[in-house]
Amino acid sequence: MAGNQFGSVFKLTTFGESHGQAIGGVIDGCPAGITLDLAAIQTELNRRKPGQSAIVTQRKEPDEVTFYSGIFEGKTTGTPIGFAIHNTNQKSKDYTHIKDSYRPSHADYVYDQKYGFRDYRGGGRSSARETASRVVAGAIAKQMLQGVSIHAYVSAVGPISIDQPYTDLDFNHIEQNPVRCPDPEKAQEMEAYIRQIRKEGDTVGGVVSCVVRGLPVGLGEPAFDKLHAVLGHAMLSINAVKGFEYGSGFAGAIKKGSEHNDLFNNDGSTQTNHSGGIQGGISNGMDIYFNVAFKPVATIMQAQDTINNKGEQVVMEGKGRHDPCVVPRAVPIVEAMTALVLADFELIRRTNKS
Amino acid sequence: MAGNQFGSVFKLTTFGESHGQAIGGVIDGCPAGITLDLAAIQTELNRRKPGQSAIVTQRKEPDEVTFYSGIFEGKTTGTPIGFAIHNTNQKSKDYTHIKDSYRPSHADYVYDQKYGFRDYRGGGRSSARETASRVVAGAIAKQMLQGVSIHAYVSAVGPISIDQPYTDLDFNHIEQNPVRCPDPEKAQEMEAYIRQIRKEGDTVGGVVSCVVRGLPVGLGEPAFDKLHAVLGHAMLSINAVKGFEYGSGFAGAIKKGSEHNDLFNNDGSTQTNHSGGIQGGISNGMDIYFNVAFKPVATIMQAQDTINNKGEQVVMEGKGRHDPCVVPRAVPIVEAMTALVLADFELIRRTNKS
Amino acid sequence: MAGNQFGSVFKLTTFGESHGQAIGGVIDGCPAGITLDLAAIQTELNRRKPGQSAIVTQRKEPDEVTFYSGIFEGKTTGTPIGFAIHNTNQKSKDYTHIKDSYRPSHADYVYDQKYGFRDYRGGGRSSARETASRVVAGAIAKQMLQGVSIHAYVSAVGPISIDQPYTDLDFNHIEQNPVRCPDPEKAQEMEAYIRQIRKEGDTVGGVVSCVVRGLPVGLGEPAFDKLHAVLGHAMLSINAVKGFEYGSGFAGAIKKGSEHNDLFNNDGSTQTNHSGGIQGGISNGMDIYFNVAFKPVATIMQAQDTINNKGEQVVMEGKGRHDPCVVPRAVPIVEAMTALVLADFELIRRTNKS
Amino acid sequence: MAGNQFGSVFKLTTFGESHGQAIGGVIDGCPAGITLDLAAIQTELNRRKPGQSAIVTQRKEPDEVTFYSGIFEGKTTGTPIGFAIHNTNQKSKDYTHIKDSYRPSHADYVYDQKYGFRDYRGGGRSSARETASRVVAGAIAKQMLQGVSIHAYVSAVGPISIDQPYTDLDFNHIEQNPVRCPDPEKAQEMEAYIRQIRKEGDTVGGVVSCVVRGLPVGLGEPAFDKLHAVLGHAMLSINAVKGFEYGSGFAGAIKKGSEHNDLFNNDGSTQTNHSGGIQGGISNGMDIYFNVAFKPVATIMQAQDTINNKGEQVVMEGKGRHDPCVVPRAVPIVEAMTALVLADFELIRRTNKS
Repeated sequence: MAGNQFGSVFKLTTFGESHGQAIGGVIDGCPAGITLDLAAIQTELNRRKPGQSAIVTQRKEPDEVTFYSGIFEGKTTGTPIGFAIHNTNQKSKDYTHIKDSYRPSHADYVYDQKYGFRDYRGGGRSSARETASRVVAGAIAKQMLQGVSIHAYVSAVGPISIDQPYTDLDFNHIEQNPVRCPDPEKAQEMEAYIRQIRKEGDTVGGVVSCVVRGLPVGLGEPAFDKLHAVLGHAMLSINAVKGFEYGSGFAGAIKKGSEHNDLFNNDGSTQTNHSGGIQGGISNGMDIYFNVAFKPVATIMQAQDTINNKGEQVVMEGKGRHDPCVVPRAVPIVEAMTALVLADFELIRRTNKS
Repeated sequence: MAGNQFGSVFKLTTFGESHGQAIGGVIDGCPAGITLDLAAIQTELNRRKPGQSAIVTQRKEPDEVTFYSGIFEGKTTGTPIGFAIHNTNQKSKDYTHIKDSYRPSHADYVYDQKYGFRDYRGGGRSSARETASRVVAGAIAKQMLQGVSIHAYVSAVGPISIDQPYTDLDFNHIEQNPVRCPDPEKAQEMEAYIRQIRKEGDTVGGVVSCVVRGLPVGLGEPAFDKLHAVLGHAMLSINAVKGFEYGSGFAGAIKKGSEHNDLFNNDGSTQTNHSGGIQGGISNGMDIYFNVAFKPVATIMQAQDTINNKGEQVVMEGKGRHDPCVVPRAVPIVEAMTALVLADFELIRRTNKS
Repeated sequence: MAGNQFGSVFKLTTFGESHGQAIGGVIDGCPAGITLDLAAIQTELNRRKPGQSAIVTQRKEPDEVTFYSGIFEGKTTGTPIGFAIHNTNQKSKDYTHIKDSYRPSHADYVYDQKYGFRDYRGGGRSSARETASRVVAGAIAKQMLQGVSIHAYVSAVGPISIDQPYTDLDFNHIEQNPVRCPDPEKAQEMEAYIRQIRKEGDTVGGVVSCVVRGLPVGLGEPAFDKLHAVLGHAMLSINAVKGFEYGSGFAGAIKKGSEHNDLFNNDGSTQTNHSGGIQGGISNGMDIYFNVAFKPVATIMQAQDTINNKGEQVVMEGKGRHDPCVVPRAVPIVEAMTALVLADFELIRRTNKS
Repeated sequence: MAGNQFGSVFKLTTFGESHGQAIGGVIDGCPAGITLDLAAIQTELNRRKPGQSAIVTQRKEPDEVTFYSGIFEGKTTGTPIGFAIHNTNQKSKDYTHIKDSYRPSHADYVYDQKYGFRDYRGGGRSSARETASRVVAGAIAKQMLQGVSIHAYVSAVGPISIDQPYTDLDFNHIEQNPVRCPDPEKAQEMEAYIRQIRKEGDTVGGVVSCVVRGLPVGLGEPAFDKLHAVLGHAMLSINAVKGFEYGSGFAGAIKKGSEHNDLFNNDGSTQTNHSGGIQGGISNGMDIYFNVAFKPVATIMQAQDTINNKGEQVVMEGKGRHDPCVVPRAVPIVEAMTALVLADFELIRRTNKS
């Protein structure tokens, strides 16, 4: 109920605040016998971690994961996988400026109202630091999903966006630039724009796109847990996300049926893919693709008017080291949440037929 | 797991195929002591039902709900509310044309692959008829949510869309035209466009927008079950939906933080509302607003190439009476799913503090 | 949460009050492709229904089940199976004597306290009539569990109990007497005792035992959802149940380890079976056996002192037709709940290994 | 599904093997604002830990809990409480004797069959060490349950059992002897018996009883989640438990209704309490009491015939330090699981009425 769990069979429970002792989680329901590449898990964490390039926050957090259980002699045992990432950064900072005041477009105010008080150190539970636990679990889910590829990438930063359809992109370029944009020219423009925004003490939003290939037919459930509905839930649960669309998306709303329908080839594949690889909530074997919109980070390095917990107007200025644009670091998070959704549906699929 | 349930405390389970004996559901977790207006529930069903106006499908289905349990002397008892809507339309039609062939952009193919066979009568479980059960449950949820108003409306049909911000619209106009568009001029344009599309034997997509007012601070949970994530899940689970955005949405991805942040008034309300009434996944007391994109209905009255279950090319033409545009009838469904989400979070909220 | 659901993958949701319009339920997660024997389902219902023999309640309820969905051309489709049993007995009785007064050892008082009021007609939701829905779902679960046999039977009525170990009993005798006791001599004693108790206007408790054969190794989960823990939950959720023990049970508490341990045969089977077919919460391939204790029915045909809802002492006498001993009719309910547990764990088992 | 979670609103997820790096868990859904007494939590752990007295295992495990999240300035924050207990005992032992062989009446064999292999170090996930995490969570649940007292105690060790009704016992004696038996004379007999059993290299079973006082009317749900059904589930999920009964229990099966019914006092309390404080699955305000049967520990210090994983007969002798009788250390576990059940139902109760 309290919403710190995701999944129904392959299930992740996370815990932890940005400046507590540790964050972490428990993966319950991971099948036994998966040989884990632990280095690959850490690689995913490194893609998310602060300080990895010049255009992200310069905080130093090693983000090393410790596994406590559920793995033996290199393989998953079928028992819960407990893990923690210790916070190295949590000490005695000065939080006076946010302890009693509410940062605009942050969760400070609603936490105080909902819970009666809040852990005001660095955003507490509302910090995107929680997503590191998702990346750990997603990396394990990826390793379970043999033969399935999941590629997320930055398709827009502020007003700069990729023009080409995803089928024209070379995903090998994604990790070759700090923006994680597969279009090298756009990547340079985006990087320059982010640097400028940072100089202004400002932030900017963007879009992460994701493409899944190699998924078999049959993942997803007919009514409430349509594959795209759970993917949407997963994406919208990532900090700063404002929108989700798959296949033709919002542009599909403008189209006519005669333009939009995907006609079949004889093998069951389709000639076009406006459906985004999902029919009636169930994967149809074609590529799944979707877009996720992120708002600009709310913490800006400019003075802003706000209120304190007595309802008095105060002026606040962002401190510390923050991301001018969140989407480059969001790429592995989008992939992780995608993998969690697919792993769960893959296990559910095994129960569909007698 | 099988995805026919929605909600965690206020929980709906639905059953039923479009041409089986009945559809229906069970609402579990509805609090005791709510005086129910049964006529208001039927009114919501009537807003969804076929044949209600000249621009929707002309099928005749009375869609009368029968309650089996959970209501006594006009009030909810706290025990599960079982209900059914009997299908009056399910008899001996000729389904030869779809029994062995796969309608393009329908779920026929994936059902056969997933389950080994399918109930081919009129779409079976994949039919949007299932949403009638959601409307029943949503109408009860609405009655539980005293003081909260939920207004959905059509904001776009194909290329025709409302230009004004929602705050300039008069929601009293919504039910005054068959499109359910609160802008009377646009409503006329949309209606004319739908009529033209129908003449062409074609269909068109659209957008339903929704505004929630009067919600207290504190609904929604911090991590995976953010209020907008569950709203997104709910909306994306409605047939034909391709995208969801709330607050600034996809447009917010282009913005800078200095433009996008919502500054506080002294009473905790905000001067702007790019946040869409939700901060960190939790309602902040401002209006919640979001958009839901619907694709064009896949059944068109034109000949289409397709395949049968032997992988042979065949030609198929839509039969029967179908909606040229689904959004007018989707309005009460969007409201119902919204109400289900809010009712559930309202009950969860009661468990947040000691 | 509200507790009207059972199971996690093979999931039953029930609804209905004893004197409402109908009771019924939804089975979600039943795999597709199971050919259903509908007559066998009705046979199970007939084993539970009132009026079936001289020693049970003489109420007349046909208990005919109607399936609304999830079955097509004789097979399960993988979509939810909705069903209802219409109450034929629900009309205009005189409930004055229980409307405002609380029957001793019934749920009347706690319902009024918990929900603020109650459906006072014949026990409402607290009536064992709800278990008819469980029998329907259990009968379907039985049909899913090919190769597994589930035999419940009456092993004690009041002070009369079977002395032999279950392995000496012939289960073919169970349905040959109205008590459902596989020991023909004890069955006669029990029947005579029940007749005498009824003449006294009294009731008596008893024990139902159950034996499961043919279950593969590996059902059940290690920690909280041990196979016997979920079986216990299932049994204790049946009306009037006061205790559950499996394998050596309470008698095992007196034993020494050197007596109690089950030594292995070379094929992994065990020489003894104090474990009751379950090790560490997981089936080990041996017979599962357990006992379920039922209290005497609270409604007796004798005058009893009680209170009304004003806290005043009143005298109440049981009216209508009630069971003098519940265990003969409880036998199919115990089997049904056992089948639901096993079907669920069988589906979960498919997700255990990579 | 994988069964490592307990509870629906107040929900515990545990992880960890007996000889892995750590065990621990996540408590999700604990309300905000509870001032925690951390020393009291450690006290509960100490009641469960090895080495606490002469009649339990002499292993040394400090069992110190570290909290990672969810607590701030001494109070619960409403966010998940992550915690770990590091295993200090997990190093380089010699497990050769159990690596390839199956201990009789242990879970070794079924784990190998279910998962394909197992973590053979000291029982892995099937070890009762996992219950330490339950004790942590239960201790927090106890602190949430203001005004409710939960007293578990040993009522039988092998053939020696308390004769008196619980109402004649002085619970202050429970912690005054190493057996945790409130009858001082019986406690001495039990202790002597356990010492003798240990000398024989044997083990013995026993019974833990539990009494809950101060619970309000209204906890528990009508159908599947009756209060006693979930209590039974909770108790049967504890290692070595073979049976559960509440109120009159198995003895109630022998009784007549006229003897067994609890007549009301004018204030809604009852003159007798065969019901064990629960009517129709819902607490009625009277004492709740129940018994939990534990089998003898399977690890005995005697040579036993068994098989290895090739199906060959081998001889095995218990090594290390084990409990001759598990019930003294099971007392805090029974209390913890009771507290978890009650805390969950207390939160659910808040959602029952409008």
